[in-house]
Amino acid sequence: MKQAIILFGHGSREARWIEPFERLAARIRKRLPGIAVRLAFLELLSPDLPAATAELAAAGVQWLRVVPVFIGAGGHVRTGLPALIEGLRRQYPAVTLECVAAVGEDDEVLEALAVYCVRDLP
Amino acid sequence: MKQAIILFGHGSREARWIEPFERLAARIRKRLPGIAVRLAFLELLSPDLPAATAELAAAGVQWLRVVPVFIGAGGHVRTGLPALIEGLRRQYPAVTLECVAAVGEDDEVLEALAVYCVRDLP
Repeated sequence: MKQAIILFGHGSREARWIEPFERLAARIRKRLPGIAVRLAFLELLSPDLPAATAELAAAGVQWLRVVPVFIGAGGHVRTGLPALIEGLRRQYPAVTLECVAAVGEDDEVLEALAVYCVRDLP
Repeated sequence: MKQAIILFGHGSREARWIEPFERLAARIRKRLPGIAVRLAFLELLSPDLPAATAELAAAGVQWLRVVPVFIGAGGHVRTGLPALIEGLRRQYPAVTLECVAAVGEDDEVLEALAVYCVRDLP
């Protein structure tokens, strides 16, 4: 089964904004060399989620996970994203499309954030 | 020395957006019960960074770390925040004010994000 992960982020006009997303994609590729990893954005950057999904579906991906790479999940993620995913499921019935909770919901991610926040305090 | 940490986030109109920030603050308080932990926001929520800093300075905090809780750091964080911090340092000369890199710059945070992204793949 051909699998893929889309890291779904907000997007920004600032050129260096994307760097952590690219570093995250590289880490995932290193862990799972067989999986396709793509970035997609809510606004200001390309591709958007439908375009990234279309590319992966055309490449024969059968199982796709969308990870909302947001710490706080605003209306775009809580309301807009499920509706978008539902539309993509209808559009690509051959692709099993899973959307997980935003990264900021995860206990282990929060723990890593907490460790970072207190690191090297005087 | 009275220390504090400000978790600086974007802000949102969505009520539940703030939850991961509150959970993160609670984790830090549990790790370091002696430290004051506050949230502050760029927009849409209160307090902003100057108001949070004023409250902590008035409470006698002498050492303050600001953590930009952003995965991608846009113009607000890369350009606006250093200028804001510089102004606060002038305004509160008795407070040592440290601003660390955005959480998304940290290798261990990225590793936790990567682990989350690939967890329980079929």
